[in-house]
Amino acid sequence: MALTNATNNGRAVRLAARSNTLSSPTAGLAPSYLQANLIVLPRQYATDFRLLCARNPVPCPLLAESDRPGSFNELKSYIRHPSSSSPVTVASDIDLRTDAPKYRIYKDGTLAGEAADIVDAWQPENHVGFLIGCSYSFDDALSAAGLTPRYVAQGFNVPMYRTTVPLCPAGVFVGGTVVVSMRPYRSSDITKVRDITRAFVTTHGEPIAWGWEAVSRLGIADVGKPEWGDVPLTADGKRVFGCQDTKEEDDYVPVFWGCGVTPQEAVMRANLTGTVMGHAPGHMIVLDVQDRDVFPEVRG
Amino acid sequence: MALTNATNNGRAVRLAARSNTLSSPTAGLAPSYLQANLIVLPRQYATDFRLLCARNPVPCPLLAESDRPGSFNELKSYIRHPSSSSPVTVASDIDLRTDAPKYRIYKDGTLAGEAADIVDAWQPENHVGFLIGCSYSFDDALSAAGLTPRYVAQGFNVPMYRTTVPLCPAGVFVGGTVVVSMRPYRSSDITKVRDITRAFVTTHGEPIAWGWEAVSRLGIADVGKPEWGDVPLTADGKRVFGCQDTKEEDDYVPVFWGCGVTPQEAVMRANLTGTVMGHAPGHMIVLDVQDRDVFPEVRG
Repeated sequence: MALTNATNNGRAVRLAARSNTLSSPTAGLAPSYLQANLIVLPRQYATDFRLLCARNPVPCPLLAESDRPGSFNELKSYIRHPSSSSPVTVASDIDLRTDAPKYRIYKDGTLAGEAADIVDAWQPENHVGFLIGCSYSFDDALSAAGLTPRYVAQGFNVPMYRTTVPLCPAGVFVGGTVVVSMRPYRSSDITKVRDITRAFVTTHGEPIAWGWEAVSRLGIADVGKPEWGDVPLTADGKRVFGCQDTKEEDDYVPVFWGCGVTPQEAVMRANLTGTVMGHAPGHMIVLDVQDRDVFPEVRG
Repeated sequence: MALTNATNNGRAVRLAARSNTLSSPTAGLAPSYLQANLIVLPRQYATDFRLLCARNPVPCPLLAESDRPGSFNELKSYIRHPSSSSPVTVASDIDLRTDAPKYRIYKDGTLAGEAADIVDAWQPENHVGFLIGCSYSFDDALSAAGLTPRYVAQGFNVPMYRTTVPLCPAGVFVGGTVVVSMRPYRSSDITKVRDITRAFVTTHGEPIAWGWEAVSRLGIADVGKPEWGDVPLTADGKRVFGCQDTKEEDDYVPVFWGCGVTPQEAVMRANLTGTVMGHAPGHMIVLDVQDRDVFPEVRG
């Protein structure tokens, strides 16, 4: 199945991933459809992980989880339209074991490998899958407002950084810190950027920090050296953004959002026993829900 | 109306505050009844404040708010028993203008004074009152487990500190940081202390950090000099806890929880125009809800 950006919906992306036609990152695919991070845990850690998300909703917004331990195609949804009391079905035809383009498998806290699916590794009646909101979900709204994220315009992956901002611990999940994604914007556009992304409450919402002074406040050593994603470049694509000689570039400053890599990092840090799985960075599960379904302030 | 600790319920404390019989702090009054921080804002800031709480639920757990702008005795509750879909009524006979033992009034961002009530300052159809969870709510459960907080045993107010941990901003509420309360415990008791307080999800829950290394990680300059509450003392009550010569005392280390002073600080930092009000520190509004009503893991 060929994917054409302009016509994709979430299901088309999932089916392409399921049939292994798609094995690349999902940023920009199926505009306006929510994209989700996946974390799969042995059932004994599910309660603590749910609490970790509840205590840290900006970096770890929990969208849905397995309806019961072992469920990979029946999900319990936590998102709803604010004017409705019943949850929105995140996807009607979904298989958490196949619908991300690429997976990572960890055994006893160590990366064991990448895989196109996790059908064999999924343990019936044990594994619980969690879907976490992803900031790709608001890139389309930014683009529609004339504020296309630079990494999208340049065809790269968004740069992501470890910070020293502590997560609120929850049970076994202790010692985690917030991971952020970064998009450069002009200082004069920050109010607009905040206003647009504020509506996306379960996909990280408005930025958590912005400006050059935020870099040290967040404990980021070097904006030019992200821990995940691609090195950010200046608007002309020629130099590394954030280096000493580019800091004055066109009044652009770094703007930081909570990032769905945060819970993965927290899980890795907890040294859980057993098999833990997740999507490969950037290779998200795309849902049936569109931003306007759950964020009424987003212009449809 | 005389208050006897052993027999008080939440309503008795509210009525004593309403009649100005009670003008002292509420810690230890009406054990097992939830206590709440109060913040009263002009209506134009209500949406941003609600979002601030949603993005920072550990330091800013929103329990209830005015049913509509101007309401001081009809509240919309956000807490419920996990096995029920309908919210728990936080208090059936409540007046936000009179039921805290003492209030503070701020005008255009500056403290204008303290008052026994805010009946005259409350603006009809404008002011919105918010009730925020308070960690006094779990002190009784700690005491019941033989882990009486030291400040309770010594008859002081709990020490509270500004940290450098950033709050997730929300609209006008930018630049805030987390405020914490501190109770010293033996290192060997921390697992038990975490387990007991974890259940109190809307009254700050389990600690956000513990141990001497947490002090600098949170950006606290000196545990012996809290910004609010009383100076913490050693177990014998003779020296200041946390000073160089007392750090080895009986293996006690500082344990830090999110604190309901956080949203007050965030509001002050936002320099709002108009009249903002809150309870005076330590002088909470006590509710009808008991911990076992909303936290099923708490032994009743």
